[in-house]
Amino acid sequence: MRIAIDAMGGDNAPKVIVQGAERAAKAFPEVTFELFGKESEIKKYLDQLPSNIEISHAEEIISGGDDPVRSIRSKKESSMVLAAKSVKTGRNDALFSAGNTGALLAAGTLIIGRIKNIQRPALMGMIPDMTGDGKPTVFLDLGANSDSKAEHINQHGVLGSYFAKAVNQIDTPRVALLNNGTEANKGSEVTAAAYKLLSENSYINFTGNIEAREIFNQAADVIVADGFTANAVLKAIEGTAKTIFNITKDSIKSGGMKSKFGALLFKDILSDLKDRLDYSKIGGAILVGVNALVLKTHGETNEEAVFYTLKQAKDVLESQVIEELKQVMQDENN
Amino acid sequence: MRIAIDAMGGDNAPKVIVQGAERAAKAFPEVTFELFGKESEIKKYLDQLPSNIEISHAEEIISGGDDPVRSIRSKKESSMVLAAKSVKTGRNDALFSAGNTGALLAAGTLIIGRIKNIQRPALMGMIPDMTGDGKPTVFLDLGANSDSKAEHINQHGVLGSYFAKAVNQIDTPRVALLNNGTEANKGSEVTAAAYKLLSENSYINFTGNIEAREIFNQAADVIVADGFTANAVLKAIEGTAKTIFNITKDSIKSGGMKSKFGALLFKDILSDLKDRLDYSKIGGAILVGVNALVLKTHGETNEEAVFYTLKQAKDVLESQVIEELKQVMQDENN
Repeated sequence: MRIAIDAMGGDNAPKVIVQGAERAAKAFPEVTFELFGKESEIKKYLDQLPSNIEISHAEEIISGGDDPVRSIRSKKESSMVLAAKSVKTGRNDALFSAGNTGALLAAGTLIIGRIKNIQRPALMGMIPDMTGDGKPTVFLDLGANSDSKAEHINQHGVLGSYFAKAVNQIDTPRVALLNNGTEANKGSEVTAAAYKLLSENSYINFTGNIEAREIFNQAADVIVADGFTANAVLKAIEGTAKTIFNITKDSIKSGGMKSKFGALLFKDILSDLKDRLDYSKIGGAILVGVNALVLKTHGETNEEAVFYTLKQAKDVLESQVIEELKQVMQDENN
Repeated sequence: MRIAIDAMGGDNAPKVIVQGAERAAKAFPEVTFELFGKESEIKKYLDQLPSNIEISHAEEIISGGDDPVRSIRSKKESSMVLAAKSVKTGRNDALFSAGNTGALLAAGTLIIGRIKNIQRPALMGMIPDMTGDGKPTVFLDLGANSDSKAEHINQHGVLGSYFAKAVNQIDTPRVALLNNGTEANKGSEVTAAAYKLLSENSYINFTGNIEAREIFNQAADVIVADGFTANAVLKAIEGTAKTIFNITKDSIKSGGMKSKFGALLFKDILSDLKDRLDYSKIGGAILVGVNALVLKTHGETNEEAVFYTLKQAKDVLESQVIEELKQVMQDENN
């Protein structure tokens, strides 16, 4: 098992990428990690080269501000493009990057290529179960498409369902559609049409509409939504959680002794909560619908998130879900 | 100044509606409140009839499950329809209901009527300032439309801007477009087209795109979005806040003495936070773009939310913003 890593992508690259990869190399000796990027810079953060880490020099870097499609086409010697090509040729099994999201989507689609019959790949994330020790909820499309059509959403339901089954070990995943009401006749033109297709889709267990306020309630194992809305919902969740934490912190600071003492005692609860809200331990987002595993994390990622995303990469590769999806899409013209 | 109240709308009607109206009647003796609904039931919750409360009997009730447009047309003796008609004829200046949202939108549009040249009314809410004592942020369309077009969003920018100016006393409100990135070229087909129209709109101070994670950061005075996305974002905010509160409560319960003691001391901070997150004190949502003031609150409303929404009704009526909007739309074919 081999994972290609774009060592130069993200705000804290190559440092946190290399450190996360080194931790993963120690934890998973059966996996080989190939780091793409400036060799001299990568080596700065590696005391000694573990036997399951390889370095492949890449002269160029795709930065956050670069135009996605143009940079993939013009920066042929960039760490991201070379890493993607190594997956395309079969030398590596998966691609990980914390770099320019649009460029990574373009690299996945244009270099690694779509699975046959998949119209549009999607970005898929996992919503942690915050109410107990249940399984995470698969949520897609987090923004690979900004104008999803009903047929895309329907296919994403199939992709999400296979992932929930293979990776989260749920026998018959409940697939729900994010909508502005729970009744069957609710929604925009796109969601109403998607509802119909999902209802008729015999490859999934479609359970109907779900509203955004239910996302954390384990009401579904897979939530599908158009890429624009899911992206906005995810950012609203982030913004709300951050605001609540900041206000709490400020209140503690300005509250004087009484609340400072309370805060000290309350620390366990808050850190437990932060832990549950912490997406990083649950892995990154996966570009589903392409011919190999492609994963990303936030640009402001840290060593821990890199490690857990590489762990996730290993788990997904072991599940063979992408091979299974290729088979399903080929057989059934799904 | 006279406000028509649908006393029968909402889960806890008529009790909390009547109690909220009674409190408002005491606080604002210059306003007359006309309660529409079953007279005998309304009177149960009024010890004595204040001089500025009137009761108009209505035999029918539009319930939460009724089809919006059909119920407005068929239940002519319902409290909501009679209250809306009293605004249409000019007997009352504003309509308040906690009932079926779709029916209230239909009543606003079909009975009270759109302002000339307004293509689609919108639901507008106020996001409280959680970081300090700043002004709330106007947010629309919260879901009056599930397939907003770019021209609708552009008009909603004008509606929101006039409200922010007149009601929140902001001289030159910053109007931002909710989008999936901050760069000008980001977005769906609809938001890209809306961006162009908003940029060229000389009636507002358009400041560009804003992402959902910035909603609480006072980065804009007015945020416009298509009705489907804003609705999902609002529900995601609600769900996230509720989840964080519930986890915190559970942790306290199961955390034993130490955290129980901490929680006790921490109580002030949490209640302060809840207070800031409490939409009810900031009023309900307003249906903007119709010929008179129409306000709603959640179906699960309480006496306090009813009171604050009626206070908001008074403030908006005093601001004369709807008269101003009618003028602007007439003059300019905006």
